[in-house]
Amino acid sequence: MKLNTDRIHDRIAALAEIGKTSEGGARRIALTDEDKLGRDLLVSWMKDAGLDVAIDKIGNIFGTLKGEQNGSPIMMGSHIDTVGNGGHLDGCYGVISGLEVITTYVENNITPKLDLCVAIFTNEEGVRFLPDMLGSLVYAGGMGVASAHDIVSTDGQTLLEELIRANYLGTMECGSVIPHAFIELHIEQGPILENENIFIGAVENVQGISWTGVTFRGQANHAGTTPMHMRKDAGLAAARLIVAVNEIAESIGDGQVGTVGVISPKPNLVNVVPGEVYMTVDLRNSDEEKLKAAEFMLNEVIEYICDEDGVRVDMEKLVRFEPVKFDDRLVDLIADVAKEKVTFYKRMNSGAGHDAQMMARICPSAMIFVPSKDGISHNPKEHTSRKHLDSGAEVLLETVMRLDDGYLG
Amino acid sequence: MKLNTDRIHDRIAALAEIGKTSEGGARRIALTDEDKLGRDLLVSWMKDAGLDVAIDKIGNIFGTLKGEQNGSPIMMGSHIDTVGNGGHLDGCYGVISGLEVITTYVENNITPKLDLCVAIFTNEEGVRFLPDMLGSLVYAGGMGVASAHDIVSTDGQTLLEELIRANYLGTMECGSVIPHAFIELHIEQGPILENENIFIGAVENVQGISWTGVTFRGQANHAGTTPMHMRKDAGLAAARLIVAVNEIAESIGDGQVGTVGVISPKPNLVNVVPGEVYMTVDLRNSDEEKLKAAEFMLNEVIEYICDEDGVRVDMEKLVRFEPVKFDDRLVDLIADVAKEKVTFYKRMNSGAGHDAQMMARICPSAMIFVPSKDGISHNPKEHTSRKHLDSGAEVLLETVMRLDDGYLG
Repeated sequence: MKLNTDRIHDRIAALAEIGKTSEGGARRIALTDEDKLGRDLLVSWMKDAGLDVAIDKIGNIFGTLKGEQNGSPIMMGSHIDTVGNGGHLDGCYGVISGLEVITTYVENNITPKLDLCVAIFTNEEGVRFLPDMLGSLVYAGGMGVASAHDIVSTDGQTLLEELIRANYLGTMECGSVIPHAFIELHIEQGPILENENIFIGAVENVQGISWTGVTFRGQANHAGTTPMHMRKDAGLAAARLIVAVNEIAESIGDGQVGTVGVISPKPNLVNVVPGEVYMTVDLRNSDEEKLKAAEFMLNEVIEYICDEDGVRVDMEKLVRFEPVKFDDRLVDLIADVAKEKVTFYKRMNSGAGHDAQMMARICPSAMIFVPSKDGISHNPKEHTSRKHLDSGAEVLLETVMRLDDGYLG
Repeated sequence: MKLNTDRIHDRIAALAEIGKTSEGGARRIALTDEDKLGRDLLVSWMKDAGLDVAIDKIGNIFGTLKGEQNGSPIMMGSHIDTVGNGGHLDGCYGVISGLEVITTYVENNITPKLDLCVAIFTNEEGVRFLPDMLGSLVYAGGMGVASAHDIVSTDGQTLLEELIRANYLGTMECGSVIPHAFIELHIEQGPILENENIFIGAVENVQGISWTGVTFRGQANHAGTTPMHMRKDAGLAAARLIVAVNEIAESIGDGQVGTVGVISPKPNLVNVVPGEVYMTVDLRNSDEEKLKAAEFMLNEVIEYICDEDGVRVDMEKLVRFEPVKFDDRLVDLIADVAKEKVTFYKRMNSGAGHDAQMMARICPSAMIFVPSKDGISHNPKEHTSRKHLDSGAEVLLETVMRLDDGYLG
């Protein structure tokens, strides 16, 4: 069987026309008119391929090709909603490639043993509705449907209202079909594969995430008249913490990352010592124990800084997810296929969150990564070469074929 | 001769009623309606005391009591314009006390040998018109009158238009009267006197000021997917510079201060490594050579940070003033008077800019400081105890008397 990779690229381009921004980016925020048009297009393609289309109560879309046996489907897929000015590939590449794998079976008149299914999950990006990865979270039982329906968008609509408005409130029960396996093909959204000139990442883990909001409160003072020893400089405290967060990440090493992304001083004037700084600390690791160690070090260093600089602190835990470990055998399969088909592959972690981490709660799951140019994503500049996109789709097809041949038993 | 200190406090309170903000602060921004009303009130008090009132071409107001001799006046004064929500004392205290000194001569029927003059300088704060200390700058010849008239306010009016509108475009030539000496009584606007429990500061210098805008440019990257060693984190570069600026100030010591007041990262998102940070560095010293050394160290450390963190930098010199040294004999006189009258005094520097530093270009000048509660100024909370305000006015009176007795020869 051979994929029609031209069709993958044509479809990525066609979907990109819906909600195209002036910078050439994609704007199909969950359950807006543009997202609905994108969904309609995908559903029409599923129907063209002869798939059964089902919509569940959270608006997830499933296109299924019946196999010879009754049983759980091999599920592929991702999402097609975007951030405000995102790229063409994030999510869409995995959905369109999954559909292409199934269409290849159809067009070759090959009936798989197991059902093959491609899923489109609702609100992965979390731009309008929080939390992100909502469709897969609810499908996997992590949140009740009724609670999810009550979530209010940033523009004041409930998710239920918007599902009805878009005509994507389905009747299928969330979680009613437990996949045999779930595989999400996705762009890396980071620079590792490109940097190492590797074509395929077999994703073993999704990093755990710990976000902390830190407010240092010192004393706003005149920059000219306040001697250094009489200051309580919240900006200096913030600076020491930024340096310390980098030291923590480097001392733990081995995939630990630490980032201060937000730095908001008050009053933020050239001639006033900052009296208050709000900042965020983002810590991630695929190993929960190491992530806990990083959090412990963060707390210790903040306490030290408060003593040293005479400032007070308020801390707020903004987000905390434990790392997700994907299915070992599935990762091995992807790695084996990648080694055979494209040679240059590596086992790696995902630094970003994905629907697959939710699906991992209910079935063997894993991800296939392809390189992202300059590691850029959530941006109109998001790009992956055709060669890499094609390799990823081929690895997906071969992985599905081996699963259908009974790899997992 | 005894001052009527009650009248000083009553007049400070009366002036504070004009442009009073909801927080109880003062809002009489230069050449607004409120500033005009404040000027009118001061002029009426000058006339009540029988002073000759002259307005110069930049709107500075001079109230003069003729002395026995023809010659240069002993000039006191400051400004009465304010920041957007300032205190009652900044500037006003020096003007009202100066008027009180002269009024004391008048009411005691004592004719001084020299003319006594109280000045109100235009636009000291620089909120509507830049630069600040404009009236004294022009008076001292640091800027031409025509250029100053062309300065456009933040609300789009020229200074000339606003002088005419307020009816404070005078005919006196700027700089046409060169004072025998200029003495500015002012609140410290810093914490040093209060902290050391000292009543009077004899101000020897105004610190030189060096403001630099620094933009670090790195690479905005995903906080989850970008390994530490592949980052070009402009936020980390900024943090290292903040720490370094504090180290520079402390290593030079001896009155050197260094402040990073503005820190503006882009995109300022929790999960994105800052790609760019704009920040300001404020360095001050009363010794020009030491200030130059601090600037040299700043440049060196920025170069080091760029190498270390893989970021690029753009630097912009925003402000550069050399330190101003006040007249030695005048400072000695103030110190002597303070020692006799109130015991607790110290020689010190001014960290803020004042009209006296402009007047120092054309005549022997110095300043008298009184404590500021908690070092707070430019704020409705600005406060100095009555005891301290009275001491300052007494030192001013005695200083003027000794000048009139021929102290400077």
